[in-house]
Amino acid sequence: MTVHVFAPATVANVACGFDIFGFALETPGDEIIAHLQEEQGVTLHNIVEGKTSLPIDPSKNTAGISVQSFLNHIRSTQGVALTLHKKMPIGSGLGSSAASAAAAVFAVNHLFGTPLSTKELIPFAMEAEKAACGTAHADNVAPALLGGFVLIRSYHPLDIIQIPLSLSLYCAVLHPKIMIQTSMARKLLQKQVALSALVQQSGNAAGLIAGLLQGDHALISRCLEDVIAEPVRSALIPHFALVKTKALQTGALGCSISGSGPAIFALTTSHTLAHQVGKAMHDVYMEHHLDAELFISKINTQGPSIL
Amino acid sequence: MTVHVFAPATVANVACGFDIFGFALETPGDEIIAHLQEEQGVTLHNIVEGKTSLPIDPSKNTAGISVQSFLNHIRSTQGVALTLHKKMPIGSGLGSSAASAAAAVFAVNHLFGTPLSTKELIPFAMEAEKAACGTAHADNVAPALLGGFVLIRSYHPLDIIQIPLSLSLYCAVLHPKIMIQTSMARKLLQKQVALSALVQQSGNAAGLIAGLLQGDHALISRCLEDVIAEPVRSALIPHFALVKTKALQTGALGCSISGSGPAIFALTTSHTLAHQVGKAMHDVYMEHHLDAELFISKINTQGPSIL
Repeated sequence: MTVHVFAPATVANVACGFDIFGFALETPGDEIIAHLQEEQGVTLHNIVEGKTSLPIDPSKNTAGISVQSFLNHIRSTQGVALTLHKKMPIGSGLGSSAASAAAAVFAVNHLFGTPLSTKELIPFAMEAEKAACGTAHADNVAPALLGGFVLIRSYHPLDIIQIPLSLSLYCAVLHPKIMIQTSMARKLLQKQVALSALVQQSGNAAGLIAGLLQGDHALISRCLEDVIAEPVRSALIPHFALVKTKALQTGALGCSISGSGPAIFALTTSHTLAHQVGKAMHDVYMEHHLDAELFISKINTQGPSIL
Repeated sequence: MTVHVFAPATVANVACGFDIFGFALETPGDEIIAHLQEEQGVTLHNIVEGKTSLPIDPSKNTAGISVQSFLNHIRSTQGVALTLHKKMPIGSGLGSSAASAAAAVFAVNHLFGTPLSTKELIPFAMEAEKAACGTAHADNVAPALLGGFVLIRSYHPLDIIQIPLSLSLYCAVLHPKIMIQTSMARKLLQKQVALSALVQQSGNAAGLIAGLLQGDHALISRCLEDVIAEPVRSALIPHFALVKTKALQTGALGCSISGSGPAIFALTTSHTLAHQVGKAMHDVYMEHHLDAELFISKINTQGPSIL
């Protein structure tokens, strides 16, 4: 039996929700093909676009780590062979490691007859994130697995809240072709923040949830403000301020850094507007002769899908 | 023409919403009787329970300040005489100064034929708060004027969001008969907080809004956690930890300090439970021979009322 799964890229932080908010995209994402093998443990092959499958160390890849952790949990005597089709940029701030981990553990859970709920798979994918990024953050893996907009209310104990959207939201993502290490981006942040910043950030975080649940576009727009990460991390992204200005001028509800960057996301109320906003963002990079790719997507409310 | 208005006491902060959340009670509160006078400006009389009306300086009382600010705004050539029935404890953490300011400006707006909406009255009451407490905070005056549960999303510009509750909530408030100056309670707080505290606080603030809007008691309960003010301010309130423990053991959804204290509030899912929780909280003070008063109230969804 073979299962072929797609898991989506994700936008974490979402301006006002540092380490607590994330949402899933419909494109890009990663694909995993998984089948059982007699040999215990995980075998992992990596498909580089247009090339043959190359074996990679499953203990150093989030797909392998999340599946091994899952196999340990269910005390499986069987192993799993995974083939990873990496279909999205890595080090982009779009949750590439989370997409691989989510796709893999979702596929393998399916292979074993779905012993766990999708929500119960989150800790295995988080373990992989910890190995990859140093911290077991959930703001990419939770939306990659659950789809939609997700709040990580608490890490200890883990408390993941799905926020049902009462409106359709679209996203333009500009991915500048530079790489920012998550660990590096985290180091830029102060360990201490002003109490006034906490008041501002928690007000916006609370307001964004109210806006999403009540379908209030204007409120969502006012809340998409980041006083914590964007002011420091945007310095690592060429022409960030101009890209953001163009996105807002073209009608985006808000625009900020996706995860730890360099990808820049903008939210819109329609697919057409997402294309227009995306073009305006991409034009900035074109005019400055900088390489960037553009993704236009609805918010993915499904999470992983079996292909 | 005379108008007689009640405005409610309020619980600010609400555990996870430092400076951004507040809700109104049905009891206690303040009453104002207002009528027009030929003389410009504000005349203010204060009724001390059972005693005759004593004149007080309107420029030093939040009722007088909010009304004077309103009269300036509408460029009134007429003045107003106010009689304040102080029916709630001052310096309690229950928004006493806000209740007076809200009642007064609401009454006078009514006297003048309601030229402004209730929401538009908030800045006048905030001005009075600034004179009384040093900071123009809105987390008491906004719920006192609007009723219900209120989010102050932003102060600059002022952005007040009413959160419609999709469930009934009840409140037990224990008011220890000690006085804590708001300015003193604010000084206890660090101006810098850990980034991890910001993550925790904004997660809970966002979660509380989701819980209130979706009527999820269990989520509300998990979110009623304060990592900012309660850890330091609770030291000023005798037996706070025990009162909180008793409230939670008796079935409260959560329990924390009301505003800057010393009042302690607990939220419950029923009126009966609010009484039981209140009794358990009050018993702690009885057993330690300490003086405290108890208020049991539904969350007031109306705001001020004309009597």
